Amino acid sequence: MHQALILTKYPDEYARLIHEATLPGLTTIATSEVADGVARGGDSGIVLGDPARVVQALPHLPRLQWVQLSWAGVEPMLDPALRRDYILTNVRGVFGPLMSEFVFGYLLAHERKIRLRDEAQRAGRWDTTLPGTLGGRTMGLVGVGSIGAHLASTAKHFGMTVRGYTRSSENCPHVDRYFHGPDAVAFARGVNYLVAVLPHTTATRRIVDAGMLNALSPGAVVVNAGRGDTLDTGALVKALTEKPLAAAVLDVFEQEPLPADHVLWRTPGVSITCHTAAPSFPADIVSVFAENYRRFARGEPLQYRVDFDRGY
Amino acid sequence: MHQALILTKYPDEYARLIHEATLPGLTTIATSEVADGVARGGDSGIVLGDPARVVQALPHLPRLQWVQLSWAGVEPMLDPALRRDYILTNVRGVFGPLMSEFVFGYLLAHERKIRLRDEAQRAGRWDTTLPGTLGGRTMGLVGVGSIGAHLASTAKHFGMTVRGYTRSSENCPHVDRYFHGPDAVAFARGVNYLVAVLPHTTATRRIVDAGMLNALSPGAVVVNAGRGDTLDTGALVKALTEKPLAAAVLDVFEQEPLPADHVLWRTPGVSITCHTAAPSFPADIVSVFAENYRRFARGEPLQYRVDFDRGY
Repeated sequence: MHQALILTKYPDEYARLIHEATLPGLTTIATSEVADGVARGGDSGIVLGDPARVVQALPHLPRLQWVQLSWAGVEPMLDPALRRDYILTNVRGVFGPLMSEFVFGYLLAHERKIRLRDEAQRAGRWDTTLPGTLGGRTMGLVGVGSIGAHLASTAKHFGMTVRGYTRSSENCPHVDRYFHGPDAVAFARGVNYLVAVLPHTTATRRIVDAGMLNALSPGAVVVNAGRGDTLDTGALVKALTEKPLAAAVLDVFEQEPLPADHVLWRTPGVSITCHTAAPSFPADIVSVFAENYRRFARGEPLQYRVDFDRGY
Repeated sequence: MHQALILTKYPDEYARLIHEATLPGLTTIATSEVADGVARGGDSGIVLGDPARVVQALPHLPRLQWVQLSWAGVEPMLDPALRRDYILTNVRGVFGPLMSEFVFGYLLAHERKIRLRDEAQRAGRWDTTLPGTLGGRTMGLVGVGSIGAHLASTAKHFGMTVRGYTRSSENCPHVDRYFHGPDAVAFARGVNYLVAVLPHTTATRRIVDAGMLNALSPGAVVVNAGRGDTLDTGALVKALTEKPLAAAVLDVFEQEPLPADHVLWRTPGVSITCHTAAPSFPADIVSVFAENYRRFARGEPLQYRVDFDRGY
């Protein structure tokens, strides 16, 4: 028999989904409160949860063998002051499709002028203004990991050209052309949609700076869904205010929640999506957990194991 | 030498694009006014234009050999009182991608709660409400021609299940299951997104009726982008008002423009898109025209020729 402690904002939904997965030999204790979880499930060998909660519980789990995170991001777990005497796995592969829905949802809303059409409808006006189209346009991806690769495949489905700006990797078949290091401006020149999806593990800050923003095609749209410090916020606000840029869709920020008095809340053309671009849907997470649990119970290697030293 | 009369709302853009296509032996006369076109270009052997304008010019073109329409819809040209002593071609193949952008733009805006997030942003509220997702949901296509087939491929890209309701055809590889005739309710049962893209040539009216609407999954979205009379408007308004349906996106209507006092303008959940779902972008049309012109000049059969008797 194995016991799993589930520490998440949605304990009832996780408990229900795990019950439905009928995992042999598993009992669960599910709660959103760390203290409650440790009190009732401190002897668990398995923990499934989000990093902020799991970090607090770590010192109180003497029998811990395996932690399955419900997120992709693992930074809180990498603090050198924390124990590392257990197997850590995260979630991968499920966020690419969600990120495509996010990015293309906002790009299509922009091209289809959904907000302007809503306004026309409220005024009872038959508005035959032509929409724009993604077909034939160019997307520039800052970061081409598994999420960037999915975005590239979606861009290709919609008939777009795709450029990738990476440190060195060039392994995505849907990227038409790669750029590296000093070629940032050449990469950005003529790009219609600049989409930054750099992972949190990347060391570089403010790659998307004034030089890159000013090289974009007039009327371009910028999307940041990787990490907040990828983007030079001041340069972005200037580019939006002076109108070479048409819009920016921002999911991540250097400080979250974004402070109430921050200029981005009211900069023209900015959409703030509050770190919801690629959420951890419990059904997706439980699917990863269930597969890993079956491996764990059979003593096999787990999927998506994190190397504490490499940080991913 | 051949002369083409261009009758369109956008004569300058068409003239420019055709000039850029450098078609050998072709001169053009471009105008948005039929009377002007006939006066200056009445001896043209070729006409490129939209049906409403071309129909008016038809009796005044003694040398007419070929009409290239800028639209897919050919009904006005089929009036038995009109001449049929010329080759008629329309435009196909370019509307599937545009229709995918339209349908998925609105479906993603719905799932991503873009309008609600815009409201939260205006209030300066950090709103972490989870979005919905297309992944794992079911799309029901009423009509699976070339446009429906493109929608099916896009739905598959987003991880959806696809059903098709057709008269008899079953030839799209992206449709998981087909339904016909009396199986309308079985087709609709559990569908999350019902998308009607029946062509104007289809004889059947009000296929999407109360029976089909009431069988949809709770919170379903209906999209009509084929022809206005596919949908029972009264049943739709009832289903939206009583809330089994979450939203409807309507591009076509039995009367267009939609009359100012029509209930649909203000029915909750309805988006009115004013017949802009798959517009004829001049660049796309000129691309079809240029290929057909090269064939015409060489005496070869033209692409997308319309059979006057079949009506397509």
